[in-house]
Amino acid sequence: MVQNMPATDRIRDHAGQGATTVAAHRARRRLRADQARQLADLLRRQLLTGDFPAGALPHEATLAADYRASRNTVREALDLLRAEGLVERLPGVGTIVVAQKYPHGLDRLMGLAETLHEHGHVTNEVRTMGPVAAPAPVADRLRVPPGADVLYIERLRRLGGVPLSLDLTYVPLDIGVDLLGADLENTDVFRLLEALTGQCLGHAEITLEAVNADAHSAAVLEAPRGSAVLMLERLTHLADGRPVDLEFIRFRGDRISMSGRLHRSL
Amino acid sequence: MVQNMPATDRIRDHAGQGATTVAAHRARRRLRADQARQLADLLRRQLLTGDFPAGALPHEATLAADYRASRNTVREALDLLRAEGLVERLPGVGTIVVAQKYPHGLDRLMGLAETLHEHGHVTNEVRTMGPVAAPAPVADRLRVPPGADVLYIERLRRLGGVPLSLDLTYVPLDIGVDLLGADLENTDVFRLLEALTGQCLGHAEITLEAVNADAHSAAVLEAPRGSAVLMLERLTHLADGRPVDLEFIRFRGDRISMSGRLHRSL
Repeated sequence: MVQNMPATDRIRDHAGQGATTVAAHRARRRLRADQARQLADLLRRQLLTGDFPAGALPHEATLAADYRASRNTVREALDLLRAEGLVERLPGVGTIVVAQKYPHGLDRLMGLAETLHEHGHVTNEVRTMGPVAAPAPVADRLRVPPGADVLYIERLRRLGGVPLSLDLTYVPLDIGVDLLGADLENTDVFRLLEALTGQCLGHAEITLEAVNADAHSAAVLEAPRGSAVLMLERLTHLADGRPVDLEFIRFRGDRISMSGRLHRSL
Repeated sequence: MVQNMPATDRIRDHAGQGATTVAAHRARRRLRADQARQLADLLRRQLLTGDFPAGALPHEATLAADYRASRNTVREALDLLRAEGLVERLPGVGTIVVAQKYPHGLDRLMGLAETLHEHGHVTNEVRTMGPVAAPAPVADRLRVPPGADVLYIERLRRLGGVPLSLDLTYVPLDIGVDLLGADLENTDVFRLLEALTGQCLGHAEITLEAVNADAHSAAVLEAPRGSAVLMLERLTHLADGRPVDLEFIRFRGDRISMSGRLHRSL
């Protein structure tokens, strides 16, 4: 895919004239890095959607031919995917897919177990649970008096034993008190809230960010320190509009992707 | 907010009995790290939504009182926000907000300049532009024959001079050819596509991920190597359903957040 690019040609011509100059060498390296990123982005999607049968990527030579890229560019692209923890290169075997990102829906308000039910059973390790005096920003958003008790829950959520997310949850105590005896290990808070209130949930305001995991959060999530985390803040309301569930969720970046559909007109 | 937690009390009592044991020390440190994360999450939201007048956070002692946390916990929470590049601590001044994350809408399909128009002017540095033979996954998604030329564009997008995102874009060539002479430096591709086709855009399928920036992407985005990037893959269709724009976008995690609203029922 590289040869047709005008910019590429221009840089190559220039490099040809300057031969061994440092500037030309740098330009080539920069160009190859751009091309490797381009290729890695195409391969990332294919491996995340399971396009590679048996979890193995084609040989480097095949990829080079298919993508009209140099072997060096292919190697650099595979290095990028390896650094993200998505593939491993096994001597004598080739490049294999080692990570799976689970697709979390962005179109409908759903709990983790609901959205991932096709992929396995979600279990929750409750690290902390109990009443806390609501700090001002929590009280404000849950519409309870500042300092009133709310239920605080901290859960490490796993799919098939693998840590997916660390969730910090605040619920008004009149509803939260009934969560204390509920099966939080195996059930989404969303489902429990609907069962306890006899109401469906209505809507949620969400904010998504990418952050680097601090050392402690990384350790809890069994991820490398500094690894990218998809951070979700979500304030969920009952169908009648009352806010009932404020959550701060750190998803492991290498385990979760979020997919949805946007429309141009509302 | 800490004293009321049952888990906290339990660990504190235990630490009191065991006095100086290593286990008790570790438990205390772990507990403080949990509490610091909890506090940092509450402060993060406030500073991102501009809740702190004049861009300065309250004094540590005030935060400690407001959040019923120890001074050590407050300091550790501020350290977490500093590591994320959101605040700085100035001797004799206190803790000030140094980063702004711009809110990108998740409810409607919009270009970057459109969604951020209140915050300033978006400029685009076109790093590469020209026809390339469509690799199979691109051809497949844009519904052009494999190997047919498509227009490839690579842009570094800035707001007020600050790099926000690196965008890799593929457009079918029959439409893309008209983009070659367009003002890509100052205009969203979305707007240009609508002007060129005389059609509104319809919908897009999006996937969001958090990834660590590779060295080269980080350098282009002027961000530290390994910093968290919000990665958006987006396939946009015209109102008549034809796919016209496949993009791979790396947003700097410390500059962009995505916000929207989800509903329980569709």
